[in-house]
Amino acid sequence: MSVRDILSSENELTHMLGAQQAIVLSTRIRLARNLNDHPFPGWAKAAQRAKVTELCLGALNPMPKFRRAHEVRMEALPELERAALVERHLVSKELSGGKGGAALVSRDQTVSVMINEEDHLRVQVVKGGWHLRAAWHIAEQLDDALSSALPLAYSDRLGFLTACPTNVGTGLRASAMLHLPGLCLAGHMDKVARALGQDGLAVRGWLGEGSDAAGNVFQISNQQTLGLSEDTILRHLSGWVRNVVEQEENARLRLIESEGEKFLDRIARAFGTLRHARLLTSGESMANLSLLRLACDVGMLPEARRATVDRLMIEGQPAHVQLRAGTELDTEARDARRATTTRDTLADFPEPSAPKLS
Amino acid sequence: MSVRDILSSENELTHMLGAQQAIVLSTRIRLARNLNDHPFPGWAKAAQRAKVTELCLGALNPMPKFRRAHEVRMEALPELERAALVERHLVSKELSGGKGGAALVSRDQTVSVMINEEDHLRVQVVKGGWHLRAAWHIAEQLDDALSSALPLAYSDRLGFLTACPTNVGTGLRASAMLHLPGLCLAGHMDKVARALGQDGLAVRGWLGEGSDAAGNVFQISNQQTLGLSEDTILRHLSGWVRNVVEQEENARLRLIESEGEKFLDRIARAFGTLRHARLLTSGESMANLSLLRLACDVGMLPEARRATVDRLMIEGQPAHVQLRAGTELDTEARDARRATTTRDTLADFPEPSAPKLS
Repeated sequence: MSVRDILSSENELTHMLGAQQAIVLSTRIRLARNLNDHPFPGWAKAAQRAKVTELCLGALNPMPKFRRAHEVRMEALPELERAALVERHLVSKELSGGKGGAALVSRDQTVSVMINEEDHLRVQVVKGGWHLRAAWHIAEQLDDALSSALPLAYSDRLGFLTACPTNVGTGLRASAMLHLPGLCLAGHMDKVARALGQDGLAVRGWLGEGSDAAGNVFQISNQQTLGLSEDTILRHLSGWVRNVVEQEENARLRLIESEGEKFLDRIARAFGTLRHARLLTSGESMANLSLLRLACDVGMLPEARRATVDRLMIEGQPAHVQLRAGTELDTEARDARRATTTRDTLADFPEPSAPKLS
Repeated sequence: MSVRDILSSENELTHMLGAQQAIVLSTRIRLARNLNDHPFPGWAKAAQRAKVTELCLGALNPMPKFRRAHEVRMEALPELERAALVERHLVSKELSGGKGGAALVSRDQTVSVMINEEDHLRVQVVKGGWHLRAAWHIAEQLDDALSSALPLAYSDRLGFLTACPTNVGTGLRASAMLHLPGLCLAGHMDKVARALGQDGLAVRGWLGEGSDAAGNVFQISNQQTLGLSEDTILRHLSGWVRNVVEQEENARLRLIESEGEKFLDRIARAFGTLRHARLLTSGESMANLSLLRLACDVGMLPEARRATVDRLMIEGQPAHVQLRAGTELDTEARDARRATTTRDTLADFPEPSAPKLS
């Protein structure tokens, strides 16, 4: 099973969502777990990491969720394929660059388990749109199955033990990936991010920690894992996501009402650039696609086109562009390929029209 | 005969030119002449100006060149029509705003005479492309006819007498309107303008004195009118125009050779903006149309499209936009109309392709 199969297959994230749902690109649950009596990956020897991989895959592979799953050994992959998996959020940058890392990705790509990342096991459940409880439900079932199959490191006093103290306790990171062009265009995103930070939530960019908010996409997640119940963590995130989505909707409404023709002009220019440019950097592409995505949300482009825009956002990332070309490319060659794909893909798009807000 | 007839009729400037010729948009000869024993317009009374108008039109109207000419009295025109004539370079801003001004514009618009501008008579001959001798020939014939028909103010020592000392002598201003996107993109235009200034030539923008170089269009003209023969003035300008055209051609060649895909990207983006924007300021429109015009010159767009681009440059000017709309419009409404006309006009343009330089 090659990485190309993963990248070329449909998954839940490329499915269509309603306009309101579409502000939340995806919901994610991540659990950090470790095996008893095995050194954490960061200070384990190669043989110890290999043993952990064997134990974990042995426990995971028979589970129904992982029937016909993609099993990936990081060190066996060419650099571009590792990078593409990171761009898809299927594995972390740490796993892709570390030693002895492996991953098991379920057939439908909603569940993936990283082995020998910072912890022995990092379980991830991802659902398109806003489905925190559903994602949590799957993660919980998987966690129960893991607990039965493997001796997990757990302390009655602290909870789950993890390599980094920031994950001790629940080992839970719940997050939502939000598309917030309205708040960004209105210049309110900094204020929103500050408020989230003050209430214990982390705000990150498209590719997680340390990445910038390309395409006006932000990941919001809990910071605290110790001393709170899972339910408290989920409810806290949930409340804030609803709040931010509401602020985004208001920002869009205000933009449409107060900017009128200027707003349509902005969207139309983004469309013009994507439809005609011969060189597109990743950043400019994301910024303009973000505006087209917004256009689909507010009826300036047919809603059915949103999935195409989302696909261009994912496939315009550097490793994806190079994999598609079948070779490594320098920056200008990537920018030329990205522009060509974008032009071709948007060729049959209708011209953006005035917004229709319900 | 209304101004709309002038604006809607074809004229030599909208004809097609070869690519090399097209760098010179037009050649212009202007002669300043005054009547003996009449005060200059700036210090004449209304009745004296009216008398001058009567005398001049009486002399000009019977000339074969002015058969079926357009006769225009500035004060009788609505402001928008006056402004549109200025945008067409048929009359000067001074004439359009002054008192008692009139103009006679020949049927084919190559010859116009302003009456009661700074001087009693300002004769203008304009030819599309680079035709200095031909323009001069027409101006000379007209000057001879004027000298026979009217008592012109002339001193054997100084030559023709004019209201402003800078025009005394020949009263001749010879100029070329040049489209220089290559030199502008390469960042060399300042240097070229300095060299021209040091050798006694004036460099002005699209609308003459005090205007900026919208659309990378520059007017180059002689400064000195006294103590030089007409022939010397024409040869001096001629040498420099050939020199600048050559520099422009070299700049284009270097752009195409060194920038490759980046150059095509620049043109394609200009096309994308013009094809899709909903609001276009006059300046942005000119800047992007200038790039499309360049594209026509170097085979990135069919040469046959250049006339359409030229027409958009002329008709995108503020007064033209409002006249077409049939009403005065505020800036945003003008920008919206300009964008609509531009989108519609370019709708059937082919996509710009890689340059083909002979």
